[in-house]
Amino acid sequence: MFFASDNGSGAPRQVIDAITSANDGYAMGYGADTYMDRVRAQIREIFEAPEAEVYLVATGTAANALALATFIQPWQTIYCHRVAHIEEDECNAPEFYAGGAKLTLLEGADGLIDAEAFALRMQNAPTAVHHAQPGILSLTNLTERGSRYTVAQITRLAGIAKTHGLPVHLDGARFANALVAEGCTPAEMTWRAGVDVLSFGGTKNGLIGVEAVVIFDPAKAREFELRRKRGGHLPSKHRYLSAQMEAYLTDGLWLDLAGRANAAAARLEAELRERDMQAAGVKILHPVGGNMLFVELPNTAHQALRDAGAIYYDWPADIGTQVAEGASQARLVTSWSTSEGDVDRFLDILRNAL
Amino acid sequence: MFFASDNGSGAPRQVIDAITSANDGYAMGYGADTYMDRVRAQIREIFEAPEAEVYLVATGTAANALALATFIQPWQTIYCHRVAHIEEDECNAPEFYAGGAKLTLLEGADGLIDAEAFALRMQNAPTAVHHAQPGILSLTNLTERGSRYTVAQITRLAGIAKTHGLPVHLDGARFANALVAEGCTPAEMTWRAGVDVLSFGGTKNGLIGVEAVVIFDPAKAREFELRRKRGGHLPSKHRYLSAQMEAYLTDGLWLDLAGRANAAAARLEAELRERDMQAAGVKILHPVGGNMLFVELPNTAHQALRDAGAIYYDWPADIGTQVAEGASQARLVTSWSTSEGDVDRFLDILRNAL
Amino acid sequence: MFFASDNGSGAPRQVIDAITSANDGYAMGYGADTYMDRVRAQIREIFEAPEAEVYLVATGTAANALALATFIQPWQTIYCHRVAHIEEDECNAPEFYAGGAKLTLLEGADGLIDAEAFALRMQNAPTAVHHAQPGILSLTNLTERGSRYTVAQITRLAGIAKTHGLPVHLDGARFANALVAEGCTPAEMTWRAGVDVLSFGGTKNGLIGVEAVVIFDPAKAREFELRRKRGGHLPSKHRYLSAQMEAYLTDGLWLDLAGRANAAAARLEAELRERDMQAAGVKILHPVGGNMLFVELPNTAHQALRDAGAIYYDWPADIGTQVAEGASQARLVTSWSTSEGDVDRFLDILRNAL
Amino acid sequence: MFFASDNGSGAPRQVIDAITSANDGYAMGYGADTYMDRVRAQIREIFEAPEAEVYLVATGTAANALALATFIQPWQTIYCHRVAHIEEDECNAPEFYAGGAKLTLLEGADGLIDAEAFALRMQNAPTAVHHAQPGILSLTNLTERGSRYTVAQITRLAGIAKTHGLPVHLDGARFANALVAEGCTPAEMTWRAGVDVLSFGGTKNGLIGVEAVVIFDPAKAREFELRRKRGGHLPSKHRYLSAQMEAYLTDGLWLDLAGRANAAAARLEAELRERDMQAAGVKILHPVGGNMLFVELPNTAHQALRDAGAIYYDWPADIGTQVAEGASQARLVTSWSTSEGDVDRFLDILRNAL
Repeated sequence: MFFASDNGSGAPRQVIDAITSANDGYAMGYGADTYMDRVRAQIREIFEAPEAEVYLVATGTAANALALATFIQPWQTIYCHRVAHIEEDECNAPEFYAGGAKLTLLEGADGLIDAEAFALRMQNAPTAVHHAQPGILSLTNLTERGSRYTVAQITRLAGIAKTHGLPVHLDGARFANALVAEGCTPAEMTWRAGVDVLSFGGTKNGLIGVEAVVIFDPAKAREFELRRKRGGHLPSKHRYLSAQMEAYLTDGLWLDLAGRANAAAARLEAELRERDMQAAGVKILHPVGGNMLFVELPNTAHQALRDAGAIYYDWPADIGTQVAEGASQARLVTSWSTSEGDVDRFLDILRNAL
Repeated sequence: MFFASDNGSGAPRQVIDAITSANDGYAMGYGADTYMDRVRAQIREIFEAPEAEVYLVATGTAANALALATFIQPWQTIYCHRVAHIEEDECNAPEFYAGGAKLTLLEGADGLIDAEAFALRMQNAPTAVHHAQPGILSLTNLTERGSRYTVAQITRLAGIAKTHGLPVHLDGARFANALVAEGCTPAEMTWRAGVDVLSFGGTKNGLIGVEAVVIFDPAKAREFELRRKRGGHLPSKHRYLSAQMEAYLTDGLWLDLAGRANAAAARLEAELRERDMQAAGVKILHPVGGNMLFVELPNTAHQALRDAGAIYYDWPADIGTQVAEGASQARLVTSWSTSEGDVDRFLDILRNAL
Repeated sequence: MFFASDNGSGAPRQVIDAITSANDGYAMGYGADTYMDRVRAQIREIFEAPEAEVYLVATGTAANALALATFIQPWQTIYCHRVAHIEEDECNAPEFYAGGAKLTLLEGADGLIDAEAFALRMQNAPTAVHHAQPGILSLTNLTERGSRYTVAQITRLAGIAKTHGLPVHLDGARFANALVAEGCTPAEMTWRAGVDVLSFGGTKNGLIGVEAVVIFDPAKAREFELRRKRGGHLPSKHRYLSAQMEAYLTDGLWLDLAGRANAAAARLEAELRERDMQAAGVKILHPVGGNMLFVELPNTAHQALRDAGAIYYDWPADIGTQVAEGASQARLVTSWSTSEGDVDRFLDILRNAL
Repeated sequence: MFFASDNGSGAPRQVIDAITSANDGYAMGYGADTYMDRVRAQIREIFEAPEAEVYLVATGTAANALALATFIQPWQTIYCHRVAHIEEDECNAPEFYAGGAKLTLLEGADGLIDAEAFALRMQNAPTAVHHAQPGILSLTNLTERGSRYTVAQITRLAGIAKTHGLPVHLDGARFANALVAEGCTPAEMTWRAGVDVLSFGGTKNGLIGVEAVVIFDPAKAREFELRRKRGGHLPSKHRYLSAQMEAYLTDGLWLDLAGRANAAAARLEAELRERDMQAAGVKILHPVGGNMLFVELPNTAHQALRDAGAIYYDWPADIGTQVAEGASQARLVTSWSTSEGDVDRFLDILRNAL
């Protein structure tokens, strides 16, 4: 019963096979492998973006920080949600890669940026040299609270950014989960909605450590390549990354994996929303947009779950929110490898403990 | 006949098996996996350094840049050889990670820093605030010209550094090749000789992308961890790196692999030094310290080799050196997977072409 | 009627005389002038801090950014008020000098950090490597809203910081104004209250461009010196800065100047608080701690004042505040050279317009 | 007898008068003063560059570092002479401001970059992402060895840079001295010769701390302004800088001051080149291009000069050069305020000591 994070899972058979298969013989390094040529073609087709440039890195923090740095200047600011991963979980990597840029935090329920607040902020954005200059809007989908932007919401937020001349970044560490849940095309969730650069996650959805950065404006590609190398993020034996990504994108594996993770979360959610659960003190704290739930449970229930071997993180209550006495909050993340059995066992233990 | 680089090779069976085996079940991320506990213990034992701290990253550039940045300040300078990897092949990664530090280039034949020149430089090192302050000495073993520092040479250079209060970094992208050739212990080539931090290469010697940074002074460990995370170099699914490294260090696999690469190079070297080869215009340009040869061959020989499918890099002649007319220089790198057959075929074609 | 900023004023006669007098003959550069020896002694005496180190720079942004960078690491965060000068008015200089550190914004009425909120924030401050690490607390006195921290308030905030191991910086661009108004000693407002490093403003209070950084912990001094040089903030003809500062500190000139500015502000405030003024729509928006008032006036009054030649900045209403219809807000800053005549004339015009 | 540096001098009467005069009344800050409007117009006229943008900063290091950073990227390298001020005397300020860029050092006699060597270097400049990318050529005139580039030499070096797409920076800390000695126009020594951005020195030639950065391509101006503010180099009471610069440029004062400094150096040089001086062990080490001489003198002569109160710096012999036994090298710098009397007295004492 592992619900700590989707990065606690392993990789599906196809991915391990791809690594094994790529291991035969010699290959030129640093991205000049034939696997990468196929990955590039796959992503261009999947995103209906024949001009897009695609680069692989090994971590999501690298993907985000390099993508952002390529689109902004050190004297600018990155607009993001107060709980964005780039703000809370990357130990100043965006500031480091962007040469000392700032993050400006936006509010909004459920980890979703409030469009009105962003529009107001942009209307009053200063332009004199004394102030950090507007740089880029960074969205996260799924958000850090497990909720999901609709295509319409992304389009609206990106539209406000564009009105003020700002590019838009999408942190898609859980892009596949969002996409499958939203039921739209990759193009609809990205460049058609106004996204200029995407951190396209693979690791949380079944790879052993590969993220793609998809740059819809090829004019930025060379700078990205130099930044990647300078950051130490250009692998010499690059083929092992591209082979994984190729397998991931082949025959819709990435969508299947995300679908499985989402289904497990939906199974959890459906039960947790039952009237008796709610009556017993179970709360779902944010809309469930994909494969991540934030819940409040009685502490006795937490104890029973932990005693039975469930693994998941306590989660501090958001500032300004109330937690019921004798209860506390937690994050539950499902992954492609979460079994129905584990979900059901979790629910059984919970139900018994309530 | 692949002699382009040791990073063009695949991984041995044990490494692939380790990845496959690590793929079972769930694991906590970011280095909190049990494989890493074993790797730490292995390295401490191998290096006879029970206090050493050990961290894994995916690229050699990351290992070097993070190690250096942890030991210097932005207003300092890194002393290294004019042809050091950190100077020539990392696109300013050391400067980036060290917040704008400088590299001060030292001379010396065959990629080896001249100790007299370094001592003289240090005697005249400025201390006023106007000048870049002395920061660290960075050695590379094997060097970028394939030569090798002896333990005595490392000890002497590190001793000069220590006299002036400088720590010492060793870029050991080919540490195993140097160690096997030198026939000393890991401790003798590192902390006993005065090395404070080691980039301990794995990728060029058979891993799919893992380097260890070994910090002999544990007081620096926390800073390294924060720098690694901030650089986007802390993998979430860290177990795949530690599992590889564990296999690499088990039963001396790493030494076997380096021994094979060195033997292939020695086989090449022995023939190339034959009198008839030399008479026909073959030159070996630097002492062969491990698994890398720099050679000058008649262009007709290059042509014949390339026609037969040999893959290797042309290498620009070092400044101030002469190349015979109708000849040009090249780099030949062997790896753990270089077969005797490939070496012999290469030599046959060469001999025929001369 | 110049109320735009205290940096719009000139310098008093003593300061100009000091420049003229320092112009005679030759002097060694870069701080090795005899004026600086006297300045150092003066500040140590004034602050009752015989170990303090003192450095001069030409701008307040340089003073703040260098002071902060000397006390934190790039992976840390600076706690400051949401409207702090370092957040709003320095174009990312703190982030730049601190190598990509973050600013964490705290709330509180009137530009004053709320101690409860800060204490709560610190209790929940994360320590895992994923997160920006707590770095320093930066206070501003006078604040950017013209209010003033009492010694007790500084002591309390610094105490919270110290509890969590954080050093404390005080942005004292208007330190003299705060000090005179508070009626305490320099030591009481700084190191006795827990301040580790002070940006001691001179420019807004009568110098032509000199700020001192006072470091109460001399162990940090050498780093500061190197950072200053590296930032291009070490003047070659340093004597012109130190001569000004010497004059400023001699015979309490700095306190006299601040006293004059505060008196002008008090004269303004007293009238603006009169019942008839208030009834006519005049509002004082924040407690007046020294020489800066934020006011709301009917637009007709603004028009009359501007028509009569009054110079001051409109000020956007703080987020979440209401402005009366037909009114708008403005900032009025007095300086050492603000005459009673100008104040009275301003008030006359205002009264007539209401 | 002060020959330590031209930054040890004071300012001429006109400059002090300008400060005094600018002190009257109020002025808007941060460059929005009317003096600056005139300075901009003066420089555009003097340089015959009606589009040029002009900014003032207080130090030469700031001027150089900001100018360079505006024209390059962090993954690029700055080509400069091995003894350039930006390499030897700015404590990594260029690397800091340019976000971790590199300096690539070029050789050449007398502090002058050898054009053949630069051309060769550029022909072999690497373009792959592994390497620091070519960024900019930075020249210094007068050089750090007191020699002077002719217009033809600048044109040739800049031409090589331009062939490879590089912009050109000129560190003109002693631009006036070079210009007066060369007898050309400002345009001829800068943009007509291929210079894109100039650090136009004022401090060494009589200001109390003002340098102008002249950007011939106005497209770079906004970035420079933001970098200046972010570096803490935008003075609030900017008028004091612009008033000085206005006086400096009025009625050719700047050229008169440089002419005086050069004349004093020429007077020194003429005597030192006399046969009897040379026979007694006096050597002039580099061609004297303006107001700076490097000399070798018997140690007895040094002693006599110091005993008589002469102030100047010993200068370490350049690497690879020989110093006669019983002799050592020194730098002598004249300034606008060096009197004929001081020169003659210096020469008398020297002659007596030989």
